[in-house]
Amino acid sequence: MDCSLAQTVEIIGERWTLLILRDAFSGARRFEQFQKNLGIARNILTQRLKALVDQGILEKKPAESGRFEYRLTDKGLDLQPILMAITHWGDKYTAPDGPRITFIERATGNPVEPMSVRTTDGRRLNPKDVKAVPGPGAANG
Amino acid sequence: MDCSLAQTVEIIGERWTLLILRDAFSGARRFEQFQKNLGIARNILTQRLKALVDQGILEKKPAESGRFEYRLTDKGLDLQPILMAITHWGDKYTAPDGPRITFIERATGNPVEPMSVRTTDGRRLNPKDVKAVPGPGAANG
Repeated sequence: MDCSLAQTVEIIGERWTLLILRDAFSGARRFEQFQKNLGIARNILTQRLKALVDQGILEKKPAESGRFEYRLTDKGLDLQPILMAITHWGDKYTAPDGPRITFIERATGNPVEPMSVRTTDGRRLNPKDVKAVPGPGAANG
Repeated sequence: MDCSLAQTVEIIGERWTLLILRDAFSGARRFEQFQKNLGIARNILTQRLKALVDQGILEKKPAESGRFEYRLTDKGLDLQPILMAITHWGDKYTAPDGPRITFIERATGNPVEPMSVRTTDGRRLNPKDVKAVPGPGAANG
């Protein structure tokens, strides 16, 4: 099970972890904020935050208040397309009244486009247009 | 926990389920194919396939061979951006020798672009450019 998808699922494929990350993208930084937003048991939140710090997805830093804050690293920020794709799929299939939350460009108010797979020259691809081929790491495994 | 992300995680946020879906996107259709590709216990595979059929993500159909096949429905095919985003993140952070598998456009051989969040007019957005706002379903919950 050494493909990138499997390895990533090991890291983030857990309900609380994804919800913590969602809150981090929405601006939550302090333990108490995550705890209140999610209603998660404190010991579980402690475990999950520690795992995210250990993975380099969050970093724990002293804040001006003297408390600690958890901030998304660049590696964590790079999870945004995954969270957005999950949210868009859920909006389409699990939200009969329409999405409870939508996403806009902060500067313009323009909506974010539903995530889609594209070629490097920008054309959208349907699932059946895409083919998996061995990549550079294939020879080493 | 009624946001789209949480509901979607309940459906697909499970390691074997994501690996079954990955194989389905790669063309696997028969129970024996999934079982051989994944080395998964037969009773677990049976459970996970049934759950995916119950969710309308796979459909179970008699094949020409007389056996059953599991095929991605439109709802299942719409999971492609999620799987692609997970794979791309994993390629970047968990595959030091480069990706084992890459994705190309079948017709042209053009590579698939790393998944990114964009505005509806096609500009890429960084995580900090994006803001969450209440959507049409917010009033109903």
